[in-house]
Amino acid sequence: MNPDVPANTHPYISTGLQQHKFGVPIDEARKLYAQASGIRHLQVAGVSVHIGSQITEVDPFAAAMKRVAELVRALRRDGHRIEYVDAGGGLGIAYDQSENRDFESFVRDYAEAVLGPLRGLRVHLLLEPGRSIVGPAGALLTRVLYKKTNGNRKFLVVDAAMNDFLRPSLYEAYHEIIPLRLEEEDLSERVDVVGPICESGDFFARDRELPVANEGDVLAMLDAGAYGMALASNYNTRPRPAEVLVDGRSVRVIRRRETIGDLLRAES
Amino acid sequence: MNPDVPANTHPYISTGLQQHKFGVPIDEARKLYAQASGIRHLQVAGVSVHIGSQITEVDPFAAAMKRVAELVRALRRDGHRIEYVDAGGGLGIAYDQSENRDFESFVRDYAEAVLGPLRGLRVHLLLEPGRSIVGPAGALLTRVLYKKTNGNRKFLVVDAAMNDFLRPSLYEAYHEIIPLRLEEEDLSERVDVVGPICESGDFFARDRELPVANEGDVLAMLDAGAYGMALASNYNTRPRPAEVLVDGRSVRVIRRRETIGDLLRAES
Repeated sequence: MNPDVPANTHPYISTGLQQHKFGVPIDEARKLYAQASGIRHLQVAGVSVHIGSQITEVDPFAAAMKRVAELVRALRRDGHRIEYVDAGGGLGIAYDQSENRDFESFVRDYAEAVLGPLRGLRVHLLLEPGRSIVGPAGALLTRVLYKKTNGNRKFLVVDAAMNDFLRPSLYEAYHEIIPLRLEEEDLSERVDVVGPICESGDFFARDRELPVANEGDVLAMLDAGAYGMALASNYNTRPRPAEVLVDGRSVRVIRRRETIGDLLRAES
Repeated sequence: MNPDVPANTHPYISTGLQQHKFGVPIDEARKLYAQASGIRHLQVAGVSVHIGSQITEVDPFAAAMKRVAELVRALRRDGHRIEYVDAGGGLGIAYDQSENRDFESFVRDYAEAVLGPLRGLRVHLLLEPGRSIVGPAGALLTRVLYKKTNGNRKFLVVDAAMNDFLRPSLYEAYHEIIPLRLEEEDLSERVDVVGPICESGDFFARDRELPVANEGDVLAMLDAGAYGMALASNYNTRPRPAEVLVDGRSVRVIRRRETIGDLLRAES
């Protein structure tokens, strides 16, 4: 069901307005449930919504769940047995540490926003908070290839590129970047962190105050576990990076680095 | 050499301003040429610029080449043997047919803009007009899976998605879309053409007047030969499409369709 609720997030990952391609308008839903319940191979069981991704305020969730609760009540009045509500995903994580978001209290507020409208309905609640689970679990490690200055702009050219990690370019996403080895002195400088691909869209951070890093240093881009490797491509004939699982002291390559051979494999 | 010339194109593919990561500022170039000529394993041979991609006016090229010509003269006065000028790429193609651009006359104007400032310099000219060669040579074929209406918006959901063809989403690029089989009557309707991926960024055209197409119909997205497959990913666990070379009456699969097996291949 499309609840026609605006989610304050990047337009590419906002999905719950009637202008979006997703779901069924609420006023058409009852007709469709009636139709579905007449089909022998279908079992009407619940209502599902998804208003978008990386949402950092709870009001849109509350608004959506209110409309879901109304629909559940209406469907039950129509004689359907509604046992499940799928509230979708959208739980936004704290990409920008300077915002000092308290994720745990946000999760409590989120729970209240989702549960409030459902109280008394006795439904089984499904949630899809994928990004909040895998996002902070991943980091992209990259080495500084080259430090250069053009006019009054300073660039750290790193060996990762937009083909490896598209979020900054596609969603104008912010990711924390920290050098693995901090210099003795606590110096910082204003830099663009960019990849070596042949377009200006190949960037990770722009005009960002970062601890001083030098050629050869390794940088970690944080919260890269969601929509990271999933969006990686072979743009500029670049083999995709390896993925390494770190679990306590155990370190394991779970996806080997691609080779040029993989890219040029013979067509069978 | 970074000529510090603005190119009127999408910011992601504009590359010739000093704020961009590319090239060497012109006032640093002479010092670097002097340095390079002192290195036994380097041969100073030319000047290269690239101001951006998909540029549809010729003035930025003329401005850049004027600065290149000045640099070539200065370098020759410094005693360097400059035999080559690489004018880079950027020759913009006519994605939107309603603009009625005359590509051939544009190419003539482009040639004049590039050659004018170089007259009398006696250099070997290199050009990199890749997009204008391969762009119009490729089309993406996709089938309409489903036609739906949300509120007053009509959607054609097709079986291609942003993972197959990212340009509309990444660069807000316009591509002509035509049904392969036109209905008898010359009807048109206003639609969004979208893929089946779970985000609103998965679109190919928005609010576009198109000839009426129905479920099962095949649509061609034109001018998909450049930055098409090169930017394809496996987002949403989607295997990448096959590539087919059509040469007159000969049709050949030059890249086989990926399989789920390719995506899940064992790490070696």
